[in-house]
Formats: sequence, C-alpha cells, structure tokens
Amino acid sequence: MTGKFITIEGLEGAGKTTQAQVLVEWLASRGHKIVRTREPGGTPVAEKIRNLILDHHEEEIDPVAELLLVFASRKQHVERLIRPGIAAGDWVVSDRFTDATYAYQGGGRCLDEALIREMELTVLDDFQPDLTIWFDCDAEVGLARASARGELDRIEQESMAFFNRCRSAYERRAQAHPQRFIRINANNPVEKVTEELLTALEAYFA
Amino acid sequence: MTGKFITIEGLEGAGKTTQAQVLVEWLASRGHKIVRTREPGGTPVAEKIRNLILDHHEEEIDPVAELLLVFASRKQHVERLIRPGIAAGDWVVSDRFTDATYAYQGGGRCLDEALIREMELTVLDDFQPDLTIWFDCDAEVGLARASARGELDRIEQESMAFFNRCRSAYERRAQAHPQRFIRINANNPVEKVTEELLTALEAYFA
Repeated sequence: MTGKFITIEGLEGAGKTTQAQVLVEWLASRGHKIVRTREPGGTPVAEKIRNLILDHHEEEIDPVAELLLVFASRKQHVERLIRPGIAAGDWVVSDRFTDATYAYQGGGRCLDEALIREMELTVLDDFQPDLTIWFDCDAEVGLARASARGELDRIEQESMAFFNRCRSAYERRAQAHPQRFIRINANNPVEKVTEELLTALEAYFA
Repeated sequence: MTGKFITIEGLEGAGKTTQAQVLVEWLASRGHKIVRTREPGGTPVAEKIRNLILDHHEEEIDPVAELLLVFASRKQHVERLIRPGIAAGDWVVSDRFTDATYAYQGGGRCLDEALIREMELTVLDDFQPDLTIWFDCDAEVGLARASARGELDRIEQESMAFFNRCRSAYERRAQAHPQRFIRINANNPVEKVTEELLTALEAYFA
C-alpha cells in the first residue's frame, strides 16, 4: 500500500513546528509510519541548497535565480526522499512545499505565477500533496512571534508588505485547491490551534 | 557603445584557460575593456552554487536538480555581471555558458534538449553570446591532459562515454549555430592552437 504526502504551510511564527509534532503523533497513533521532512531541504544536497537560499550574502540574489534554487532543492527532495517514501508506504510530512513558492517567490517577490506553474509542471511533473494544512496567521502576529525567537534569516527579514503578499497568495492557493487544503486559524493561542487541528484531522480522516 | 559577449567552450583539458588568456590579450590590444569570467560562477552567489555543482556529495544529485542549479547560477551571472558589463561597453569573456549545458547536462547526462531549450527561453529570455570559440578536442586527449593536472571534480570523474557524448553535443551546437561558432582544433599542441586562434580572430574581426 502506498503512503501519503502531507504538507504544512504558513508564515514564519504560525506555529508550524509545534503543530507538526501534534500532527505526526496523531498520524502515528493511527499506525502510519511517518517520515518528517522540510523545505527547502530534506536531503543532504537539498539542505546545502537551503543554506544558500536562507543565508545572507554579499550580493542580492536575483528572484528568478532564487526560484531555480528552490526548485533544484525540491527536485532533489521529491526524487530522493518523498517519492521513494510514499512508494514504500510511508506517510511523508513536509514543513512547506510548492505552495510556499507561490506564497514567497510569487506573492512575496512578485514573480509571475505562470512561471512558477510552468516550473511545477516541467520539473515535478505536477507532483502535488495529498493534503495541505495551512496555519493561517496575520503577518503582524507571525512576525512578532518569529522576532521574539531571535535572529532573522534572509527571508524572515523582509518587510511587512512582503509577508502580507505571502499571506494573500496562500489564501489564493487555498481557494484554488479546496479539496486538499485545510485552513487552521493560527492567530489563536497554541492550545486552541492544536484543538482546531485535531478536530479537523478527525473530520478529514473519518 | 554596448560591448560584446564572447564565450569559450570545450571539454576538460581542451586548453581553454591558456587560450582565453591569448584571446583576452588580443582583444585588449584592440582597445576593448575586458571582463573575464566563468561558469558555473562569476559572481559571489553564483560561485557558491558552482561549489555545490562541482563538489562531491554523500548522495547523487538528480540530473534535473543539477540543471536547475546550473541555470540558477547562470541567471545570477547574467543579470548581475554579464548584462550590466555589456551595457557599460565592456567585452565580457566567459569560460563556458549555455552551450556547455547542452554538452554536459544534455549530451553527458542525457537530459532532453527540449528541456534545456525551455529553460534558456524562460529563464534567460533567450540571451545568447555574440561569439563562441569552441576548442574542440577528443575526449581521450582532453581527459589525459586533465588527469595529468591532478584530482578530478565531480563532473571530471565521469566516464569516457560521458565525455564523448559531450563532444558530440558541442558538435551539434556548432552545426546549428554556425554564425556565432568558431571551431578550433584543440587536439594540436598548444602553440598550434594559439596560432589557429589568432588567425581565426583576425579573420572574424577583419
């Protein structure tokens, strides 16, 4: 029996890490073997590409070059870890996937959505998650939480307008793909978010 | 007055580095301001991507991921160094460019040429060199020279069949683009190659 591919999406400070743990434990309690991973990254080479994407550099990265780096890391991740995992029957849970590219490089950096769509089709043969859980919080809320955690990486230090565009792009993704998107209100306190997540999971997998 | 973009192509051990010096001096003697660069690489971020491409890793790099890394570094190189240089009137001389992608990722790794063509159009808006000088040597000759120089990088350690496919792909490029390709027989000893290069330059720029 093949496994499933579940992605977790949301802005910095949406509480993805905490809720991913809840999700993984809930799935494991139902007997699934879980592979937990993240993007950019997820394999040794993809993690090296992640560092390139998130590090501060002595020159600006061209937005299309950044997009190509994101898809290079994703291609490595999909072919070396995600597809083999699903084929082996694992449930692969990834912190972020292509929806994040529509949010950050599309919404945030204002790249043409058609370019991202073309990459998704050409490079990944339109490979999609079975289920996406979107922890939706306002940019102000997320950034306040992320800043409280400490030093910001190259993308986290973008402006509030950037993150507002990211959030809007996530919203467009959720509206365009209602069959695989679950939206959780992540402005709430952590216990309330966990409660809403568990309720949504019980309903989805009923 | 805008400058020109000249690329140097050929297999490992074709003598590109030596002949690039001859080319650069010849162009400078005619009063052009030269920017000498290379691919993959050419800017701080592009050089970091170069290291990722050429280093040995604990896992194989997916061929399409490698292609995306090559185009990420190229996009950065074109937008941050090559186009601004040409616009400022410089003559930009690059050791390798997109023809090398057709040779190595296309010929060598057997990726579909149409995929490379699509990237070239989408990512670079079909940006092309004004002139390409191809130092054509047999795979055996080039690899013998490259091996004599010492340790081989991740791509240089490929098989003879790989480099034979690269050479054939270069030949197809030269045949498809005769107006910008100059072919120099690089199986010859270095003095003879220099002589042939200078004769070709005098004729081309006559």
